[in-house]
Amino acid sequence: MKVAAVLWQDRRWVVRVDEDAGMAFPFDMPESQAQSGVICLLHEPSLPKTLPGVSLRDVKLLAPIPLPGRNIFCVGKNYHEHAREFSNSGFDSSAAAGVVPKHPIIFSKVPDSVIATNSDVLIDPHVSTSIDYEAELAVIIGKPGRGVSRESAFDHVWGYTIINDVTARDMQGRYSQWLIGKSQDTFCPMGPWAVTKDSFDLEAASVRCFVNGEIRQNAKVSQLIFDIPTIIATLSEGITLKPGDIIATGTPAGVGIGFDPPRYLREGDKVRVEIDGIGALENRFMHIS
Amino acid sequence: MKVAAVLWQDRRWVVRVDEDAGMAFPFDMPESQAQSGVICLLHEPSLPKTLPGVSLRDVKLLAPIPLPGRNIFCVGKNYHEHAREFSNSGFDSSAAAGVVPKHPIIFSKVPDSVIATNSDVLIDPHVSTSIDYEAELAVIIGKPGRGVSRESAFDHVWGYTIINDVTARDMQGRYSQWLIGKSQDTFCPMGPWAVTKDSFDLEAASVRCFVNGEIRQNAKVSQLIFDIPTIIATLSEGITLKPGDIIATGTPAGVGIGFDPPRYLREGDKVRVEIDGIGALENRFMHIS
Repeated sequence: MKVAAVLWQDRRWVVRVDEDAGMAFPFDMPESQAQSGVICLLHEPSLPKTLPGVSLRDVKLLAPIPLPGRNIFCVGKNYHEHAREFSNSGFDSSAAAGVVPKHPIIFSKVPDSVIATNSDVLIDPHVSTSIDYEAELAVIIGKPGRGVSRESAFDHVWGYTIINDVTARDMQGRYSQWLIGKSQDTFCPMGPWAVTKDSFDLEAASVRCFVNGEIRQNAKVSQLIFDIPTIIATLSEGITLKPGDIIATGTPAGVGIGFDPPRYLREGDKVRVEIDGIGALENRFMHIS
Repeated sequence: MKVAAVLWQDRRWVVRVDEDAGMAFPFDMPESQAQSGVICLLHEPSLPKTLPGVSLRDVKLLAPIPLPGRNIFCVGKNYHEHAREFSNSGFDSSAAAGVVPKHPIIFSKVPDSVIATNSDVLIDPHVSTSIDYEAELAVIIGKPGRGVSRESAFDHVWGYTIINDVTARDMQGRYSQWLIGKSQDTFCPMGPWAVTKDSFDLEAASVRCFVNGEIRQNAKVSQLIFDIPTIIATLSEGITLKPGDIIATGTPAGVGIGFDPPRYLREGDKVRVEIDGIGALENRFMHIS
């Protein structure tokens, strides 16, 4: 099932998406519940009834979790070729961890950096001149847990979405820890919606990224260095995972900094991230006004 | 003014603290407002009336902001001597930033790691065998801002509190980015209360840390490498700061890993952090049961 958070008729709704039919079916619940986005469904014993469908063209998509309750967990250097291109870039403040890390590198992005598909990422040339894209599969946690084993990790997964882990490369290098370079306002496009675990084929899925229509990244999620069970087991070893936690699993090779010279994003660029079985997340990059 | 979040008569309150008199004066507001802790006062045009005072002995102190709305910002290696002791420790995954960093190193702790004074920090010997203390002054943001200048930085500060930035050194090193080693459950003691900016003498204040009564850390806050205006200007350059944001400003020399051999915390240890003009934050370290 595909589930989206939307604005429709001046209020927020959570809807079931029928992409083929181009329809959205709003779940019948008060706006106060729908505010938290798709994770409001986690609190329901069974799926709420839906109202009659409306055209997807008539709703405005929000990020599936518009304002997460805590920072988004993100995994760095988690595809082999990307780990190498990043290490070669001269911006790798995690160099001590090795070209290909022996353990997952986990950092965070502030919740307030989240924006929806079709919203603009705002770049401020006075703050950073090296804005880069990172197409990623993101996991949405549905069940709390601490000390989760690799074997039971998927029991804690509710679903998936797409994240563009937008990064200011100069800041990522300058500040050593990656939080600042990853958390700039608008730097976390998420969406277009979420898919529940049961309707997503993780083994088959590929992550692709296009800049102005040119393909830049293309890898199977199954090529992750640290797979989803390992990431969940590592994080939850001493940190209790919560429903609504989001984990961006890492980006494949082909980011702007991997080119020589680097191909950073410029005003007007359109970045489109596709994952099979989820959909496409598309955002324009514009100078802050 | 000292302000605390407390449990009293089975509900949460925010109170004005008169430490000398040993009294707490509950602000007259519904519990739903008091839930967020001392930052509920930020939303009031003027201070709410207080109820008759109760003895501080009759209330249970909570962390001044029991569950922050996003991860706590923390500054690493921000006192000269501590930067050197940490670099010499062999655990410094930020070595590329230099022994004394040229730019602030900013990472985060998850909000759910916050605990109150007198609560136990839980250590799990199967997860980490190198638990360390870090006594720190924390800034509480009161006014939103982006692109805040050094000159106007204090306009955005509402007050201060104490944080013990408890750290699993083995995890801090293993995972390269510091989020995991800093975010273990219960690893953010905060309190005992907050003080408003107008009643805190930043220039005069010292941070001290005692382990089982033995002094380990002792430095003036004025010895910070990157002072509070610089930290606020750096963070807010492209990240909009929000009321209720918490920034732990860094720890002085004298942490356990600075000793040879390191003096990590053991079950039953009591760590007390004092800052002049705020008070004392004390927590016992116990094995998880």
